[in-house]
Amino acid sequence: MPPSEHAEALTGNQSLIKRINSAAILRLVRQEAGLSRADLAKRSGLTKSTVSLLVQELIDEGWLCESEAPVSNAVGRRPTPLQLDPSRLALLGAEIGVDYLNVVACNLQGKLLGSCQQPYSPSDLGSTLTALAGLIAQQDASLCAQGWRVLGISVGVPGTVDVHGHRVGMVPNLGWHHQDIEQPLCKALKRAGVRQSPVKVLNEANAAALSEYVFGTGAQTNSLVYLSMGIGVGGGIVLGDRLHLGHDGTAGEVGHTVLQLDGPPCRCGSRGCAETFISQRAVSLDITGTPDPVLPIDELARRVAGGDATAVAAARRAGRYLGMLMQNICNMLDPAVLVLGGPMVQLGPVFLDAARECFAGLQARYAFHTTEVRHCRFGINACAVGAAGAVLHEALMA
Amino acid sequence: MPPSEHAEALTGNQSLIKRINSAAILRLVRQEAGLSRADLAKRSGLTKSTVSLLVQELIDEGWLCESEAPVSNAVGRRPTPLQLDPSRLALLGAEIGVDYLNVVACNLQGKLLGSCQQPYSPSDLGSTLTALAGLIAQQDASLCAQGWRVLGISVGVPGTVDVHGHRVGMVPNLGWHHQDIEQPLCKALKRAGVRQSPVKVLNEANAAALSEYVFGTGAQTNSLVYLSMGIGVGGGIVLGDRLHLGHDGTAGEVGHTVLQLDGPPCRCGSRGCAETFISQRAVSLDITGTPDPVLPIDELARRVAGGDATAVAAARRAGRYLGMLMQNICNMLDPAVLVLGGPMVQLGPVFLDAARECFAGLQARYAFHTTEVRHCRFGINACAVGAAGAVLHEALMA
Repeated sequence: MPPSEHAEALTGNQSLIKRINSAAILRLVRQEAGLSRADLAKRSGLTKSTVSLLVQELIDEGWLCESEAPVSNAVGRRPTPLQLDPSRLALLGAEIGVDYLNVVACNLQGKLLGSCQQPYSPSDLGSTLTALAGLIAQQDASLCAQGWRVLGISVGVPGTVDVHGHRVGMVPNLGWHHQDIEQPLCKALKRAGVRQSPVKVLNEANAAALSEYVFGTGAQTNSLVYLSMGIGVGGGIVLGDRLHLGHDGTAGEVGHTVLQLDGPPCRCGSRGCAETFISQRAVSLDITGTPDPVLPIDELARRVAGGDATAVAAARRAGRYLGMLMQNICNMLDPAVLVLGGPMVQLGPVFLDAARECFAGLQARYAFHTTEVRHCRFGINACAVGAAGAVLHEALMA
Repeated sequence: MPPSEHAEALTGNQSLIKRINSAAILRLVRQEAGLSRADLAKRSGLTKSTVSLLVQELIDEGWLCESEAPVSNAVGRRPTPLQLDPSRLALLGAEIGVDYLNVVACNLQGKLLGSCQQPYSPSDLGSTLTALAGLIAQQDASLCAQGWRVLGISVGVPGTVDVHGHRVGMVPNLGWHHQDIEQPLCKALKRAGVRQSPVKVLNEANAAALSEYVFGTGAQTNSLVYLSMGIGVGGGIVLGDRLHLGHDGTAGEVGHTVLQLDGPPCRCGSRGCAETFISQRAVSLDITGTPDPVLPIDELARRVAGGDATAVAAARRAGRYLGMLMQNICNMLDPAVLVLGGPMVQLGPVFLDAARECFAGLQARYAFHTTEVRHCRFGINACAVGAAGAVLHEALMA
């Protein structure tokens, strides 16, 4: 809702005021655990009494809890530090991978409460959603039995999703094209016995970006780009505390930015895309000389670690192009943080050092700072944990 | 101010409510001239009586005016269309170019009320600002004599500017490095006799992006990328109705995204930057075989238009790389609109058709839409008009 609409509504709508202010308090505590009520009043601009009232409600509802007050010899009552309550509200996140389904349950701090994976073969959308709903139902039941309240469910998919999260555009590795997904997913969940919860669908790299943004970062990071490198290459962009989806939801498709004019053909129909240099498919092709089958990432990592000359050269070459892509992302977007994730990071220093070296060599001299580059914190769970994070993010951005 | 802070402030602060709601009304009218009070009530969510009160105040203050009511034979009073008042409030915008200073005065609809240019040789910051302040004072005096009220002054510079607009980072063509600019500019304006107005400094491509966003676009465009191609190549990015400045203000430096690993050396210290393929400098080098002097754009355009084979080949090559850059921008950001601007567009169809052809050939198959590509509307005044637009933008985003 744009500010204007707030303004008038707010003068007469106490419950809307409360919701907006509560979300703001939660955002502050998420950014920096340990803030006291007085800190929150100072940072939010709200009065201390308003903050106290809202904090009490958030504690009652399971959002916040008081952590241990720091021991001190000073006279007087010490302020009580607050944090997101890790013990009552749960988030469900899922990933539809190319050859597996993954469902995780997290608490508000991003700690894993449970997970289940299932290998599967690419299939039609309906069967996939039925299988996924079964796994979600399993986690949901387990959470309920332990007394958790589930806030919502979110699913990451390896392809483009429209800005509303209603439809997938193209999911090349699963063969889905322009199909409704949100409604079929809701129905499948209902059939599987999952009680009505908010459901959200998003691109896998966007989900992974939220894993880092919602659970992995400190107070200062309001912009972040996540690079998801596996069979393909995708990207997720958080700018100004929001996922940047673009005009129609396809922003962040950095795997199909072009790194070489008239370069190698890409599955997308174009040529010279980043994906044709940096992906598992590209490294495998470099080593075997044939596009199929793509060697498993474990196999590639083993060969590189073992010093196989062809594999090392292929990983280094991919790394150099990764450095080029990193530079292009940073020059275009100037994010605070760039996160490297996906199976390809298993190629280790041979790949990643080549990337950092190339990136450093390309740095322009005009920048005020250098973007912080770091590795993904949630490994193979990045997408599913980020999908869970999307549920929390949605609630906090209310 | 984040929503939370609004909420409480608003309950007790009628003047803040009024300011926010007034800005919202102005944004709606800017997006679509001709809206009636009833339309505004519907779109803003405000009551009709509130809208009527605010509109009357905005008319009294010179922001809005009523245009002719459409003639109709229907019974009853016709709603009166509203528009930004073109006749009372003025905006001053300036550009510090590489070899010229340009100052324009615009009305709220972006119509030029006056302008003055002055050639100059790159000089130290102080002398440049003194010369610029003289030109601004001239325009300011002329506006005042005609009864205009000046809302503010904004200046575009050909280099990086920090997020606050206080300092320049690197302005390679003028030899400025990490210097304060806002305070010296304010002082120079004061010395030149310009009455106190808000002053803002921004990167030239960011300013040019605002020229298109604030004055050139329709209701549906909330994301836009502007490509400024001249001696160098810069970019300005508008996302979610705001300039995207990045973590430290250097976002949009698309001229230094890398289009070829180990490519030609760039002035920035890197290699293979877009600027080494797409700029006036690149085309000139391609034609003459020497980096200095860079042929004037008129000379390049004349040779290309005249069918000089070397010049045509150079323009085509630059165009192909422009297509590649366009593709990279669209894949990363998915903007609604991409605007091509700067002196290089004078190379005409040979250059631009090559770009569009290459861009079309690189389009991936997964997109939901194709970004609208169009040419800059304000020609050589793009930066100065956009700087003037920045003044209006700042007021409307209050």
